[in-house]
Amino acid sequence: MEFVTALVFIFIACGCGIAWAIFNWIAVHKIEIHHKHEGLTEKLQGAEQEKIETLLEIGEHISDGAQAFLREEYTDCSVFIAIMAVALIFVSPWSTLAFVLGAATSMLCGYLGMAIATAANFRTAFCAIRSLADAFQMAYRGGCVMGFLLVSISLSILSLIIIIYNSVLVKEGDLDSLISMFDYVAAYGLGGSTFALFGRVGGGIYTKAADVGADLVGKVEKNLPEDSPKNPATIADNVGDNVGDIAGMGADLFGSFAESTCAALVVSSTQLRVISGDGPVSISIGELMYPLMVSAFGIGICILVSGYAVFIQKVTDIHKIESSLKLQLLLSTVALSPIIIGISYWALPADYMMIQADGTPLLENLKPWHAFVCSLMGLWSGLLIGYFTEYMTSHSYTPVREVAKSCGTGAATNIIYGLALGYLSTIVPIVAIAVTALLSMKLLSFYGVALAALGMLSNLTIGLAIDAYGPISDNAGGIAEMSELGEDVRTSTDALDAAGNTTAAIGKGFAIGSAALVSLSLYGGYLTRIQTYKNDDGDYPYAVGAKIDDPIIFAMLLIGAMLPYAFSAFTMKSVGKAALQMVEEVRRQLHEHPGIYAGTEEPDFRACIAISTKASLKEMIPPGLLVIVTPTAVGLLFGPQAVAGLLPGALVSGVQMAISASNTGGAWDNAKKYIEAGFYKNEAGEVKKKGSDEHKAAVIGDTVGDPLKDTSGPSLNILIKLMAILSLVLAETFCKTGWLYSE
Amino acid sequence: MEFVTALVFIFIACGCGIAWAIFNWIAVHKIEIHHKHEGLTEKLQGAEQEKIETLLEIGEHISDGAQAFLREEYTDCSVFIAIMAVALIFVSPWSTLAFVLGAATSMLCGYLGMAIATAANFRTAFCAIRSLADAFQMAYRGGCVMGFLLVSISLSILSLIIIIYNSVLVKEGDLDSLISMFDYVAAYGLGGSTFALFGRVGGGIYTKAADVGADLVGKVEKNLPEDSPKNPATIADNVGDNVGDIAGMGADLFGSFAESTCAALVVSSTQLRVISGDGPVSISIGELMYPLMVSAFGIGICILVSGYAVFIQKVTDIHKIESSLKLQLLLSTVALSPIIIGISYWALPADYMMIQADGTPLLENLKPWHAFVCSLMGLWSGLLIGYFTEYMTSHSYTPVREVAKSCGTGAATNIIYGLALGYLSTIVPIVAIAVTALLSMKLLSFYGVALAALGMLSNLTIGLAIDAYGPISDNAGGIAEMSELGEDVRTSTDALDAAGNTTAAIGKGFAIGSAALVSLSLYGGYLTRIQTYKNDDGDYPYAVGAKIDDPIIFAMLLIGAMLPYAFSAFTMKSVGKAALQMVEEVRRQLHEHPGIYAGTEEPDFRACIAISTKASLKEMIPPGLLVIVTPTAVGLLFGPQAVAGLLPGALVSGVQMAISASNTGGAWDNAKKYIEAGFYKNEAGEVKKKGSDEHKAAVIGDTVGDPLKDTSGPSLNILIKLMAILSLVLAETFCKTGWLYSE
Repeated sequence: MEFVTALVFIFIACGCGIAWAIFNWIAVHKIEIHHKHEGLTEKLQGAEQEKIETLLEIGEHISDGAQAFLREEYTDCSVFIAIMAVALIFVSPWSTLAFVLGAATSMLCGYLGMAIATAANFRTAFCAIRSLADAFQMAYRGGCVMGFLLVSISLSILSLIIIIYNSVLVKEGDLDSLISMFDYVAAYGLGGSTFALFGRVGGGIYTKAADVGADLVGKVEKNLPEDSPKNPATIADNVGDNVGDIAGMGADLFGSFAESTCAALVVSSTQLRVISGDGPVSISIGELMYPLMVSAFGIGICILVSGYAVFIQKVTDIHKIESSLKLQLLLSTVALSPIIIGISYWALPADYMMIQADGTPLLENLKPWHAFVCSLMGLWSGLLIGYFTEYMTSHSYTPVREVAKSCGTGAATNIIYGLALGYLSTIVPIVAIAVTALLSMKLLSFYGVALAALGMLSNLTIGLAIDAYGPISDNAGGIAEMSELGEDVRTSTDALDAAGNTTAAIGKGFAIGSAALVSLSLYGGYLTRIQTYKNDDGDYPYAVGAKIDDPIIFAMLLIGAMLPYAFSAFTMKSVGKAALQMVEEVRRQLHEHPGIYAGTEEPDFRACIAISTKASLKEMIPPGLLVIVTPTAVGLLFGPQAVAGLLPGALVSGVQMAISASNTGGAWDNAKKYIEAGFYKNEAGEVKKKGSDEHKAAVIGDTVGDPLKDTSGPSLNILIKLMAILSLVLAETFCKTGWLYSE
Repeated sequence: MEFVTALVFIFIACGCGIAWAIFNWIAVHKIEIHHKHEGLTEKLQGAEQEKIETLLEIGEHISDGAQAFLREEYTDCSVFIAIMAVALIFVSPWSTLAFVLGAATSMLCGYLGMAIATAANFRTAFCAIRSLADAFQMAYRGGCVMGFLLVSISLSILSLIIIIYNSVLVKEGDLDSLISMFDYVAAYGLGGSTFALFGRVGGGIYTKAADVGADLVGKVEKNLPEDSPKNPATIADNVGDNVGDIAGMGADLFGSFAESTCAALVVSSTQLRVISGDGPVSISIGELMYPLMVSAFGIGICILVSGYAVFIQKVTDIHKIESSLKLQLLLSTVALSPIIIGISYWALPADYMMIQADGTPLLENLKPWHAFVCSLMGLWSGLLIGYFTEYMTSHSYTPVREVAKSCGTGAATNIIYGLALGYLSTIVPIVAIAVTALLSMKLLSFYGVALAALGMLSNLTIGLAIDAYGPISDNAGGIAEMSELGEDVRTSTDALDAAGNTTAAIGKGFAIGSAALVSLSLYGGYLTRIQTYKNDDGDYPYAVGAKIDDPIIFAMLLIGAMLPYAFSAFTMKSVGKAALQMVEEVRRQLHEHPGIYAGTEEPDFRACIAISTKASLKEMIPPGLLVIVTPTAVGLLFGPQAVAGLLPGALVSGVQMAISASNTGGAWDNAKKYIEAGFYKNEAGEVKKKGSDEHKAAVIGDTVGDPLKDTSGPSLNILIKLMAILSLVLAETFCKTGWLYSE
């Protein structure tokens, strides 16, 4: 395929994606709220106008709070990015440029995501007064804006970088210049992942410090309902959903997308060779665009699929919410399958091979089908992970109901059953990832793994949309409660929120699944680098490969497997400490201003926002350092083989913890929602709802699950990806150092 | 060293060990209890005689219950052992014999341990009336009987097997017959580990089903105190301590001891060669006895050390309990260090080497110091793990106090802080194990790892003694409560019990640390086997070694790392389900016989014992099958390389989970004890004890921790060891099958 042809299709797709996002953005903002809104007069009587004004005011507070946090976070992050950018100049100024663009793109997308979420949240609450279908549409449209903007902007900026670097750096027919060009481009992924550290870990601590802190004083001590306007930490809690679950999650998935694309480009430019009549010849840049084409067509298909949800489907019944969202995933997967097969035959050479670093063949007789099998394995195992996650975390199925039932014997059994559920939920995703990794490595080595990761992310727009739908609905519920919008509205938003918990868990499943594959492909790149490293004597000291029975590799495999535990301990304690600061502030306010509890005085929610902001940015330092310092120090002190053990150790252990933490947390949250919705009956057949002992036990599980599912679990994605890409960048340095250890 | 000299020392040591155990056994039984016991008349007044009779009666019930369970367990287990024994005949009848002897030894030691524990428990409670020092001595003596009997009997039976097999099977000067002889001997370890599956998993489920079940109805629903005689499940709970924490733990550590000795013998007979003037010559059986000599001298030193605790030290103050037990560990470690150095120079050849399977040198210029560095690394990292575990799980230090403090904001923060503590507590043990593995592999390859494991187990008698001390004290507390022995007695037994929680955690640290090293050395044996496998064409298809970037190895590394999660999910749910059966039975009894609650009617505790027995033996089937079927199926279907990925995956992930589960559980238990002892003050400075909200939060943590620390966590040792030894035995079969996958 010609480079120009590929670019035309890519930019058309990105253009359509952005246009579709803007269309939905406008549709969201078209809902102008005033109390005499069409069809609402019957429902809004008496003091209702006041409620709508409260709703608007709360929406504004949340938006302001989220902006304030992002401002602080971006300032801190910029300093860090600047330092790393300067360090990267020693690699190449082109790397620096790509790195900065990667970080900036991620920041921009995070900001836009937050902006649309804070615009959609109160409107969703408002629409819930009118009808469930409207509310669902509003929340999902918000999600779509986030999803399509992020993928389209990332893909177009990456393509732009490739165009510019190609025209400036690559000499016609000079393969070496093409290969090193993609090395520079790869810093785009590093930029994205570095920002994701701030977005996911900092944002994750923020959101759960606020949530746990609010719950501890509010529900436990003062017996206030969730999201009570009397609780000074409530606004911070809702802000947290936007900065952690929207901006942070976006940064994480942007990182996966950018890294897997870059990994595919780096590996394919180095190792792929076209076979023509006379034997292997060089490869051209156009023939390398296959992964970007998959993403581009992914955007196109997802526009059609999300259009179905927005225009045609009507979610009139709370039982249809979850199935509608699931249908989005299924449709996009099914529709993309033949498209990916078609692109493979169109964009890839008909006959190609992969070579090893020394030029000898690694895999021969490769056809387009090798590539699409890898991509489809990724795509479908993503769907499988999604569906299985839904099964494990939705209260429509046995597992969560069993957890809910275990609340009948108290909080302890709830915790035991929830933990067991999380552990058990690793089986299917891990087998799916393992089979995908196995087959794609067999077919196309690490290029295959990168393609599998991209295949899983080819319907990322839909994945992000249904994921972002969750926190928007969660916020809508909170706003409805704070504006005292009435029981039926709250029932609707609760149902939306419960489905959101499930889709959030699905999104986390995607995120961790793709992170595992991305990290594996980066590890492949790392191994290739160290195996081809030639020392001053002309030897290849690390050509032997990473053998498990090599002492340093086994020792580091063990230590690598420990890192996710240390990291989770740090992040959980960070949430705990920040939450306790929040508790103190809330106690102080309620104590010094008794009017707040009586409802005659407004709480100072800005003080709570400031605490969460400050604490989260401070508390993210230890886990952040762990991620950055560990592989660097291990590499510098013990050499490249040590890191070759550390990375897979962290990967295989981190994936399990991440999956189990997300699903445990999601299940506890929905077990609580199951009881609140009045579905739970005890042995005597009595319905137990809010306020019962069963509900109290469920709330304890939910609170424990909060940092697991929204801080520790998802942050582990960053751990495994950032360690891998950092090691890849520093591979040569490690080969030259390793001061304390020799083979 | 001459074989005969070695044997003389080994049997003298075993003889002394058994004599010392019998001496303590007699000392325990010498306390004949009647109400006019010397010096007790002042304290026992009025209705006191009745209490002592209750005490005796309860002791008898517990003993009967434990015997009943062991009878059932041994019956079930014997069937399974018989099947495996028959299967092993196809390997060799000699393997079958060693296998059966290994299983039988483990059963015998488990039974003896249970017998002494059920003799010491009520006597400890009785002695607590007189003085703390007496009670401590009684409990510790019970532990000593268990520790010395187990190690001495195991070592002497193993030595006997070697003597017999050597005289029957080995031809003078024929090295090959010596090597295959040790292959047969290795089945002794397999036998021990197979029984340990029943002991650890079945016993673990039993003990916690009873404990959790008793707590759920007793404390949560009926507001009965712990160990209330009105609770029908109390006796089953106390029986559980004896069958799970005594017999099960003994079986686990017996397995580690037998396996690491066998691994050392197998590796050294195959790979060690003595250097004499003319170059490498064969090695004789006497020169291979070094590992057994270390264990023998370990027994001798530990007699002296435990004699100090029994005869000289007086524990007069509850603050001295923990430090006395810790001192035992320290003394034995310090005293063993020079001894091990001495044995190395005495028992090992002055100059030796290790060869590869093809006869080429692997490591040259080896001296005795290579061996003692490995052993000492193991010994001292064991101490480090022990001390660090104590720091993380004793309420004398910050970590547990922080967890206790977190109860101030409810059960959720208690759970969050406890989980974080467990995760954090992996760092030091993992680094210790990793450094030990690294150095010992560098020095002496997998022989070094086996020596490190044996070094860690060289003071196993003391390790077992302080570990068994725990459940004896726990029982004593329960019996004191049930016999209503008064507040001051209960204070003493509570303090003994709190120290016991810590030593139990230390014991678990030893168990998991040694299991990791044992499993690694068995893995080394497995790799050697498959690398030297020659197919019918005369090729070595698996000579390439276990490379992490081999597709099947990486995929299985990932799946292996998932197994501990699946296994923990199974065991935790098993406990949950069995506990709920117990709850129903207790509810039924209390409902149908109101007299029980009023105190006028005796509960039917035998029904509860029967439920726990039946449920645990049924519920251990799924986790048991997971351990046995997974490596077998993976090997048969995907070949030996797949298992070469599966084993290290399970190892590196399982170790983390086991450590974190044990320590989390130990910390929660002691956080609760900290509050119960009246050390906890809230922000206003008020002391919060039993019955406070803080205590309720702590009880929830303790209940969650029960299955973690006593079922899931320790059972993981069995997972990683049994999978490794089973794969070692089946290595050649895997090489010939692997039906579904080819490299």
